[in-house]
Amino acid sequence: MLSKEANQIPFAISIAIPTSFIDVDQSREQQTQHIGRIARAAAIFQVDDIIIYRDKMNSKQMKNLQFVSRVLEYMETPQYLRKHLFGKMPDLQYVGSLPPLRTHHHPLVKESSKLRNGEFREGVVLTAKGKNVVDVGVESPLPLLQFKSTHLLQRITVQIRRDKSGKVTAHPSSPPRSKQYWGYSVKGVESSLGDFLVKKTNYPFVIATSRRGRPIAEEASKIRSQWEKFHRLLLLFGSYKEGLAEILQRDQIDVASVSNHIINLVFNQGTATIRTEEAVFMGLSAFRLLEQLKD
Amino acid sequence: MLSKEANQIPFAISIAIPTSFIDVDQSREQQTQHIGRIARAAAIFQVDDIIIYRDKMNSKQMKNLQFVSRVLEYMETPQYLRKHLFGKMPDLQYVGSLPPLRTHHHPLVKESSKLRNGEFREGVVLTAKGKNVVDVGVESPLPLLQFKSTHLLQRITVQIRRDKSGKVTAHPSSPPRSKQYWGYSVKGVESSLGDFLVKKTNYPFVIATSRRGRPIAEEASKIRSQWEKFHRLLLLFGSYKEGLAEILQRDQIDVASVSNHIINLVFNQGTATIRTEEAVFMGLSAFRLLEQLKD
Repeated sequence: MLSKEANQIPFAISIAIPTSFIDVDQSREQQTQHIGRIARAAAIFQVDDIIIYRDKMNSKQMKNLQFVSRVLEYMETPQYLRKHLFGKMPDLQYVGSLPPLRTHHHPLVKESSKLRNGEFREGVVLTAKGKNVVDVGVESPLPLLQFKSTHLLQRITVQIRRDKSGKVTAHPSSPPRSKQYWGYSVKGVESSLGDFLVKKTNYPFVIATSRRGRPIAEEASKIRSQWEKFHRLLLLFGSYKEGLAEILQRDQIDVASVSNHIINLVFNQGTATIRTEEAVFMGLSAFRLLEQLKD
Repeated sequence: MLSKEANQIPFAISIAIPTSFIDVDQSREQQTQHIGRIARAAAIFQVDDIIIYRDKMNSKQMKNLQFVSRVLEYMETPQYLRKHLFGKMPDLQYVGSLPPLRTHHHPLVKESSKLRNGEFREGVVLTAKGKNVVDVGVESPLPLLQFKSTHLLQRITVQIRRDKSGKVTAHPSSPPRSKQYWGYSVKGVESSLGDFLVKKTNYPFVIATSRRGRPIAEEASKIRSQWEKFHRLLLLFGSYKEGLAEILQRDQIDVASVSNHIINLVFNQGTATIRTEEAVFMGLSAFRLLEQLKD
């Protein structure tokens, strides 16, 4: 059952991961599944943004950056909207076996008679006989009131209204993020990580994960109060081959100069290296637990 | 770099997972990779035992129990010993692309000249010209002193000694578990989980993971002191389809009667269900962090 604690708004968290995380896989199909697992991690822990950065500035990673971003976007999109927003493309060849996200914004109900008054849905704006309608995943698109689309096939959030006669209409709305998790945004960063971190404006509180960092337990209290103050956190991950220090060094940037903390996620680590996918699950678990532990 | 804090012996932790965790995969190859990720989680967090139980008492799961156990054992075995201990078998058809464990007991050094005095190695006992020798992953097996094997191809732990003349010999030893992680044991349980939990003798402290459990943060202090007292913990996991309550109910057993705590791993969960693999990473992260947070 999805959590219904509406009064406990999770702190915002975003993650930044290197394109090379898919290099460990043997095929495009395995890579697709791998990306799916990252998307699952993001959804379970209610991540706002997934930032993909190129850890090597070459054309292979440019292609992979697009591939990873595309699959992540596909997974985040409610199933009934995918036909509008994604055509047949090589990047999406293996999405058929991706695990479902099962978030609130991926509803299972497909009948308009079962839509609840006040329910939120993601939709895509279509035109029927000159009027705006919106596909919200039921048998036919709903009338869309008070909306002017800015481009074709625009994806929007709507709130459902059912009047006394039973007629159902859709009304543009903000995503109900304070009440429930409503998906993540994907940001494929073409510049280097160093460049992105130096120029960013949206992420005031940044934590880098590194084997050479301080144990997370030692910094727990400080981190928790800073996170509460900033109310958002950007968690940076390296790859199993190269840590953030090595990646940033290519831009002559020191990790400490672009992060508030450098944290070691595992105190007594049993293996020599940790894969990005593993670190993402571990890091998100640790920080969401930290969020709950009050002094 | 593997952690070298020799004075900080991690609390012992074992996990119990249902055979059905591989049912989400589309092929035997994907299942093999999936099992590999569980093995990686166990190694990263220094798990002692992986217990696999059948959540459904049918022959398909009996086959899968054997398959899962076999792949886990294969992954735990140092690479140079696999040829002795595992023949060609259908269960291991896809092990070629498994991720390496990279634990201390999976060394990369293959030259006897580089073996260090006092180093520990896993080995398999062989006979050469009537004497016991042991394959420890260097160019030829080492003389094995003071050992009487109980069966053919016995796997043992040895300590390497290099004398003043440079001659290298192997001496039977206990695994150096207090200094470094030395792998996990695999226990494929043929009986039901309920039966196993009622009859077990080795696991005095048991925590069940469940969506209906108490938030882990609320029980943190109590759990930590109990864990320290018992010095070992068994973490139980269900599947994404069925929680532990449903699985145990088939034996008319109540979860609370076979566990010390029932814990919810994620407070604000963004998805409706969590897969066993995800829960294992999350649970192990949370408990290893809890272990480090002193009051």
